[in-house]
Amino acid sequence: MPYNYKLTIAYDGTDYCGWQVQPNGTSIQEVLQQKLAILLKQKTALQGSGRTDAGVHAMGQAANFHSPRKLDERRFLHSLNALLPHDIRILAMKSVAASFHAQHSAKGKTYFYHLHLNPYHSPFTNRYRLHVRNNLDITALKQASRLFVGTHDFTSFANEAHSGSASCDAIRTLHRLDIQEQEGGVRLEFEGDGFLYKMVRNITGTLLEIASGKDLDIAAILAAKDRRTAGMAAPPHGLFLMHVDYMEESEE
Amino acid sequence: MPYNYKLTIAYDGTDYCGWQVQPNGTSIQEVLQQKLAILLKQKTALQGSGRTDAGVHAMGQAANFHSPRKLDERRFLHSLNALLPHDIRILAMKSVAASFHAQHSAKGKTYFYHLHLNPYHSPFTNRYRLHVRNNLDITALKQASRLFVGTHDFTSFANEAHSGSASCDAIRTLHRLDIQEQEGGVRLEFEGDGFLYKMVRNITGTLLEIASGKDLDIAAILAAKDRRTAGMAAPPHGLFLMHVDYMEESEE
Repeated sequence: MPYNYKLTIAYDGTDYCGWQVQPNGTSIQEVLQQKLAILLKQKTALQGSGRTDAGVHAMGQAANFHSPRKLDERRFLHSLNALLPHDIRILAMKSVAASFHAQHSAKGKTYFYHLHLNPYHSPFTNRYRLHVRNNLDITALKQASRLFVGTHDFTSFANEAHSGSASCDAIRTLHRLDIQEQEGGVRLEFEGDGFLYKMVRNITGTLLEIASGKDLDIAAILAAKDRRTAGMAAPPHGLFLMHVDYMEESEE
Repeated sequence: MPYNYKLTIAYDGTDYCGWQVQPNGTSIQEVLQQKLAILLKQKTALQGSGRTDAGVHAMGQAANFHSPRKLDERRFLHSLNALLPHDIRILAMKSVAASFHAQHSAKGKTYFYHLHLNPYHSPFTNRYRLHVRNNLDITALKQASRLFVGTHDFTSFANEAHSGSASCDAIRTLHRLDIQEQEGGVRLEFEGDGFLYKMVRNITGTLLEIASGKDLDIAAILAAKDRRTAGMAAPPHGLFLMHVDYMEESEE
């Protein structure tokens, strides 16, 4: 039976067409699979916890791959990082149970969305935060954010994935949506059992409209189960996949 | 008499050959002077508080220029930022006394040098922090850093500037050299009345050698007044010019 390894991956998504292999453009998955193939001397599939879109970043994406031979994790991790471009870095590697599957075994995810609230953008965070010029109503932002927490049908906040997703599968639980004020900005922290396609960006975009003074009724939008009732998607570059949660036993 | 304006400037120095206009390569000063010339409709000299080297960043560089006509600071600042590339941003603009000179009126400067102390670099801070793999002795770093504070002849920590600098002019006062531990790294904070060419990078490089276990005697190196006795310069990309200090009255 082949050995199964889990990788924890950080990447700056600016110069990639997203996680998943695409016919046009370079994806994170493609670059990683290329380097794995060099080290393992055979074509190797890397299973991610899920996609991230073009321009979205990760501090803690998770993925797994099978190896025909037992690997020295420390040495392999070092070799893999040496082959990778500067904007992709493996943070950790661990041996996991044969049954571990980075997507199916995932129990939850944490995303952060960063806003830069200043008259001018910063040259240093421009790739990683959405720059918002107008004065946001942070109290309204906080109040509206609470209405998303809990178990809901999030159809109104989901774009159709390329494969087509049935709305009967759109029920998700958002455990936490915290608004953290920081120097020069605000961070939206999402923690949930799963997220539909573009759900974090659609919720963020809708919250930004509310915080900019638009009168939107979140409960009514959720009840409508219609994507057209909610706000626009926030741009990708403010979004970070921070962490993917697994049951301890699934990793052993 | 022409009007005198002070600018506070942030830039990511990665893609520039430094602050000062150079025959080869694009400098921050050159880009700013080009844009000022467009807005003022005449060739305009921008006087910086001092140079920063290729690859060095700034969160608070200061500079001044003269305008033949009175400007609306808020509007002018907005127009200037609209013309500038994303990695240069004007943070503030203010009218100053005719006698104000960004270099000669400066009373002090603050520099930060950032170290990333992890087995692997971060894709997000790779341009802004020096990645140090080996375990630094932070206690030794802190102890040695204290020996630099005060008024000294810093000849041993100064490279010769292109114009040639006499060592009789190498006496500077370092008010503060604090070692701030942060998540995933350390920040060296330098505050002084003035800094010689490459002084911050040479002190940082020497401190890194000490923190890596090398037995260096700072007092003896200072007394030697010989550049060859001190350590190597730390690379430019971890260095930020944070702030330039002026007497309030010189700005009015």
